[in-house]
Formats: sequence, C-alpha cells, structure tokens
Amino acid sequence: MKNVLLTIQYDGTNFSGWQRQPERRTVQGEVERVLSILCKQEIQVNGTSRTDAGVHAFDQHCSFVGDFGIPVDRIPVAANALLLAGSYRPGSVSDVRIVGAREVPMEFHARFNSQGKRYIYKIRNAKEPDMFLRNQCYQIPKPLDHEAMHRAGQYIVGEHDFMCFMAAGSQVGEDTIRTVYDLEVTREGDWITLSISGNGFLYNMVRIITGTLVEVGLGQRTEDSVAETIASRDRAKAGHTAPPQGLYLAKVFYDENEMKL
Amino acid sequence: MKNVLLTIQYDGTNFSGWQRQPERRTVQGEVERVLSILCKQEIQVNGTSRTDAGVHAFDQHCSFVGDFGIPVDRIPVAANALLLAGSYRPGSVSDVRIVGAREVPMEFHARFNSQGKRYIYKIRNAKEPDMFLRNQCYQIPKPLDHEAMHRAGQYIVGEHDFMCFMAAGSQVGEDTIRTVYDLEVTREGDWITLSISGNGFLYNMVRIITGTLVEVGLGQRTEDSVAETIASRDRAKAGHTAPPQGLYLAKVFYDENEMKL
Repeated sequence: MKNVLLTIQYDGTNFSGWQRQPERRTVQGEVERVLSILCKQEIQVNGTSRTDAGVHAFDQHCSFVGDFGIPVDRIPVAANALLLAGSYRPGSVSDVRIVGAREVPMEFHARFNSQGKRYIYKIRNAKEPDMFLRNQCYQIPKPLDHEAMHRAGQYIVGEHDFMCFMAAGSQVGEDTIRTVYDLEVTREGDWITLSISGNGFLYNMVRIITGTLVEVGLGQRTEDSVAETIASRDRAKAGHTAPPQGLYLAKVFYDENEMKL
Repeated sequence: MKNVLLTIQYDGTNFSGWQRQPERRTVQGEVERVLSILCKQEIQVNGTSRTDAGVHAFDQHCSFVGDFGIPVDRIPVAANALLLAGSYRPGSVSDVRIVGAREVPMEFHARFNSQGKRYIYKIRNAKEPDMFLRNQCYQIPKPLDHEAMHRAGQYIVGEHDFMCFMAAGSQVGEDTIRTVYDLEVTREGDWITLSISGNGFLYNMVRIITGTLVEVGLGQRTEDSVAETIASRDRAKAGHTAPPQGLYLAKVFYDENEMKL
C-alpha cells in the first residue's frame, strides 16, 4: 500500500468544479477515472481545495491510497496521456494535467496536512474586453484604483472572524475565524492581480473579498468600511461575489517534515 | 430597405462553426438571432467565410438586407448587449462581438464582393503546453525551423492549381485555381505565426498548407517537396490538416468604391 500526493493544474472553464458529481465533468472525477485505469482498481482522491466551477488551479493537490504496480514517478506522464485522450479537440492540450507525484507517509492527507494556501485573482481593467481571455479574468471596464484596493486589503490581514466574507447559505455554526498572512493588490498594465494567502478560507471568501475591494477601487465604498464590514460579521455588508473565472489556486503550503517517508 | 455590412469578431471555441445549423450554436445563428430581435423581422445574413468549428475571426464580415427602424450605427452596441445576455457566465464577456456596421449599396454582398482575405495561423512551439491557450493555437513541442517553413512557403505564392491543398471529399469539379498574394512565417519567442493572403481559399486550404509547412519545419519533408506537391495536384502528397484552433480569419479585403452609397 502506498499513499501518493499529486500536484495538479487545471483550467476550470469546462469543469463543474473540483468535486466529483454524477453525470458531470469534474476535475476530481477525471483524475479518479484515469488513476483507476492506471492502478487497475477504483481510486478515490482527497483534494486540498474544492474549487468551484470556472475556478482554475496552478497548484492543486490531492492524495490517494492504493496497492498498485505502476512506479509513483511514472504516474504523471501516464495519467496525462490518458487525460489528453479524453480531450475533445485533436492537436490541442488537455485542460487538466498532473505535474507532480510523490509518495508520502500513510497518515498524510492532502487537505488536513495543508498549512495554508495562496490564491490569486486576476482582473483585467481595460475599456475593451478581450474575448479570448473571457474565461480567465474578471473584465472591469471602469478605472480601478488598485492602490486604494491594496490599502483597504490590509484590514483583512491577520486573524479575524471572517463571517462577513462567507457565502450566505454556508454551513451554520462553522468556525469562521481564519488567519490571512498577506494580501497584495498590484497592477501591470491592464492587469490587476490580487494575491492572498492564509491558513484557510471560508466558502467564496476570496471572491467576496475581491468583490468588496473592487467596490473600493471603483470609489463605491471607503477603505475604512472594510474594517467595519469585518466587525459586523454580516455578509450583507460586504461586496458582491467576484465571478469564478478570475480565481486561481496558486499554492498549497505543506510542512516538508510531514511529507518525509 | 437597407443593405448592411457588419464586421464581426469571435472566439470559435464554443461554436459549431460559422454556418447556421439546426440545434447547434453557430456564429451565423447567434448573429441572426439577435439581429432578428433588433430589426423585428427574420434576418438572414451572408457571411464572407464559412469558418469551421474552433476557427476564430478578428475580421469576419456579413451582409443582410432588411426594412427596419434601428439606425445602422446603433446596431453594434445593441446587438452586443443581446449577445452578452446569451453568454453563459456572469462578469465575463461574449465570445462573439459585432465591431462595425455600415450601410452599403443594395447590390453589395459580403462574400461575392470580397477581393480576398488574410488568414493567420498561430503555432506555439514550446516543450511545455499552456493549457490556458489550448483553444487558441497549435501546440508543437518539437523545435520547428520557421525559416525553412517560410522559404518553403514561397513556392505557394502566386497563381496555382491548389487541388493538393483541398480537403479530400470536397466538391468535385470545383475550380481549384487560386492566387496567393503573400505567405510569411515569423517567430516571436515561443510563437510562430503563419500569415497568408489570397483572392480565395479552398476548403481547409490554410490548415493543410500549415500542416505541410509544419512537416518542413520538423525536417520531415524538404522545402522543394512543396513545389512537387503543388504540381502533383494530389491531396495525399500534402501534409496533415493542422487543427482548427490555430486559425484566425484576420482580414477581408473590399474595394472601397464598391461600398460607397
């Protein structure tokens, strides 16, 4: 028996999110399908982040346990060949790739052992939309003050009860205290990038933070209002939920000591 | 009654090509749907190029005749609002846009009055694929000699019988003589761009030319073989058909005198 940790990249556009669902194309479903073929047994994986439909990942992880013949370091190439075969257009490339595989101790779990994550959110702030980028960013034609967004974002850094940034209808009674390690908003030409890392994120938290900071950047709310919003613990006081296609799971943090065999 | 010429851009990824088909999402179908709403009558358009599924356009044109109230210069904004409403993801942008509209003489026809067209074909020549670009280029991991491709391409310039570059199974007895005005292959970093203009193109002609030149670039066929292939008039002697997602209709040429009211 082995426990394997995979690193996975995907373009979430044509997936109904990470989590396996009957009759839907999901990332977990695709990964489990090809691993089950390779390992000649039904494989179920534990993902680190249950990303929504349309959300992308540069550095998703999942772990799975199995008793199989294929060497662990051969899994990416073999799995990617199968993932590509399932792709719908010849001469193109797959929208999901396994970019790393390593054996980890049996007790290691991709989600429970995660020390935190970094997400980035991409905004294209330009008058004219670019249709070829429509599934990879939030298109905002009006000028955004990214420096105001950055300053307002500093109220979010630290340990807080982030109830206000959790999607309405999420699990009641959940512990809503999280620690945000850093939050940066930078601009490069038409592109504004929000980068946020923390020990954990509530459902839709990064997208609601982004929507709130976008409203600051548009001058629709003050920078200080972000602190008041956090204190209120009221979802209705926060901004809109930014659309999924701008969001990327950029990094999962693990403790190397816990990964050693 | 007015005759209107539209300029249209689209990302062909999620369309079953240009041409209207029952039960399929096509560019022509989408454009006719929104024009029919705006003009309050059933509108049928004549497109310049019947691009295949997955093929993109920066400068497609179509013309239509109707007796309607909306001012011609208002058509793009109004049509784009309707096209965006049909888009499947909030906060994103439409994959088809009308970027120009002008009234032309009644006898003007988007296709028959075209003096020629330019296509470009984008190849990404890099070892590692970029999944976010998978629908917008031909990914080729092995090194391509783009200078050899350019030199071989010069055999194609001029008036020739291009039977060898027409998809097998195309209309028999068609006149297969066309004039290619220019063909250039250039590189910028990982990107190789083939640009070709001519008075007309046979079915799949640009994609078969691209596939043939790719084989030259890989060293699988000689530069001179391209001249022999043209002389043979034999599709089997030409290269593979490059995939649709690298192809862009870049420009349609018209005689300004024929467009004047």
